Amino acid sequence: MLRLPFDEVRRTLAAILRKNGLTDLRAEECARLFAETTRDGVYTHGVARFPRLIQMIRLGTVDPVAEPERVSGFGALERWDGRRGVGNLNAWRAMRRAIELGRAHGIGCVALGNTNHWMRGGTFGWQATEAGLIGLCWTNTMPNLPPWGSSEAAIGNNPMVVAVPRKAGAVVLDMAMSQYSYGALEASRKRGEVLPVDGGFDEQGKLTHDPAAIERSRRPLPIGYWKGSGLSVLLDMTASMLALGKATHELSPESLQEVGLSQLFVAIAPAALGDAEQAERIADGIVASLHAAKPEKEGRPVRYPGERTLQLRAENTRLGLPVDEALWNEILKDSFSS
Amino acid sequence: MLRLPFDEVRRTLAAILRKNGLTDLRAEECARLFAETTRDGVYTHGVARFPRLIQMIRLGTVDPVAEPERVSGFGALERWDGRRGVGNLNAWRAMRRAIELGRAHGIGCVALGNTNHWMRGGTFGWQATEAGLIGLCWTNTMPNLPPWGSSEAAIGNNPMVVAVPRKAGAVVLDMAMSQYSYGALEASRKRGEVLPVDGGFDEQGKLTHDPAAIERSRRPLPIGYWKGSGLSVLLDMTASMLALGKATHELSPESLQEVGLSQLFVAIAPAALGDAEQAERIADGIVASLHAAKPEKEGRPVRYPGERTLQLRAENTRLGLPVDEALWNEILKDSFSS
Repeated sequence: MLRLPFDEVRRTLAAILRKNGLTDLRAEECARLFAETTRDGVYTHGVARFPRLIQMIRLGTVDPVAEPERVSGFGALERWDGRRGVGNLNAWRAMRRAIELGRAHGIGCVALGNTNHWMRGGTFGWQATEAGLIGLCWTNTMPNLPPWGSSEAAIGNNPMVVAVPRKAGAVVLDMAMSQYSYGALEASRKRGEVLPVDGGFDEQGKLTHDPAAIERSRRPLPIGYWKGSGLSVLLDMTASMLALGKATHELSPESLQEVGLSQLFVAIAPAALGDAEQAERIADGIVASLHAAKPEKEGRPVRYPGERTLQLRAENTRLGLPVDEALWNEILKDSFSS
Repeated sequence: MLRLPFDEVRRTLAAILRKNGLTDLRAEECARLFAETTRDGVYTHGVARFPRLIQMIRLGTVDPVAEPERVSGFGALERWDGRRGVGNLNAWRAMRRAIELGRAHGIGCVALGNTNHWMRGGTFGWQATEAGLIGLCWTNTMPNLPPWGSSEAAIGNNPMVVAVPRKAGAVVLDMAMSQYSYGALEASRKRGEVLPVDGGFDEQGKLTHDPAAIERSRRPLPIGYWKGSGLSVLLDMTASMLALGKATHELSPESLQEVGLSQLFVAIAPAALGDAEQAERIADGIVASLHAAKPEKEGRPVRYPGERTLQLRAENTRLGLPVDEALWNEILKDSFSS
């Protein structure tokens, strides 16, 4: 594992993005989002995901020059067309607009259709909190999860983000509707581990902790079984209806063809109602109550969502971003085989 | 089990509510919400929950005459004080206001503090869909669930509702952050059943399907383990911050003392952006894709959230509302011992 300075990672990725058609400013921005994701410890969706974006640009499934466009709007609600552009830039733009609308109206909402994989969803939650707003957003995905009562992948794992600004550290939850991603199952199998909790069904239709059995059956579990299955449906429905975009069942089940996603971005301005300091104290009180809860294992206090991110961010900023050496060589040579 | 006409149930409850201090109009409205909940098959939160409300009124924890009041507002965002009034009436009023704001601004949001148990959360999702809007709402609760990494109840099961209007049947998800409520665990134990999936930890800290073991340990599971634990925290935080209301850790863990809750209501008007028919077709397409997914058990197609509600509503309207005879006698005598 290499440890690379943040700026070196960002500059290297930006150069490749420029070569692949992005304008200077957009290449810088896109590279920053990838580097920040690795810096924040979300390794699956940072630098490791970069080759896939370049492949999608070269396949023509992602348009490197397309910028998102406002299609219609009514007060605090707008519909945008992502024009099949770069997913994380589109999502960043959509949340930026939701923040503007939230500042103007107290709450703002942007539905974004015809876009691509937003990489790390948490990015747009942090973005809202850095502007001082509460952020909520979600995306649909290709069908990769069986709904409750079926063995066939017919719903998406549709990540959802809820984020609250706080001076002492934003509280940011970024969660997919599947209990484990295929990436997590693979990693667990390669380490020779079993999952600590049920991760899916085996080929006999029994709940199992065995990651390899779930990879074979293609039946990972929705969080909370029937509950996450239902929530996935609602996230897909609200995003695609408001964006007038594609729903999960209309998306290709192939990752390099997973284009035309629908997403929803909501930003709420607590300060618009005044008493921002009191709201801050309420958030601090909740964090303190979690930290005060008797830990199951001594010395391992309960963490709030996002707490670990801040620790990893500090560590990776100090030591350099951890990047797999083979992956980095691939990126330096700009030859993406995976 | 009795089968009682809807109107008989509604009139009977309304009369008791009037006797306990509610004005005529508010008594009618409150009784309707209880009767509709039982009609819709959510038996735990309908007529069965009525005695508890009356007890709380008599204890003085619920104020039967208090009406909710707008405290502050900015554009599409408002803060309301529930003044410890009747929970379902307060929540109904808050969603009605969110709908008005949604119609005026495309999206509307009402934070309601200092309120009481809203009974069935789904009620306010159906309310939004009947007005043609998408509804989202959530509430905090007393601490009744250990956060991930702790064995001590420090978070709430914080029900959350997401609802989408659709001519052929609204799609309404109403889910608590616990995999099973204590009521469900008790019912399962009394039937001598084991849970089909992990429902919590036993007293040795092992995951278990045994409802009695979970009742003893007081360690039910959040949905998706660490994920639902995190979501519960964020729902509590957003609602209490925006309402400037109490957070879960400040609420009494005793059900008759569970007062001063914080709730959030959001309504989004798909029609505000035009093309309402296309949005409707998108929702229909998602429902059709679920119905087309290969069922795990033949003849048991995948259901969308709310589908079963519509079936039960039709059945109970036809046959009468199923109400436990002992409970109904207690109500008729207006003597609530439970």
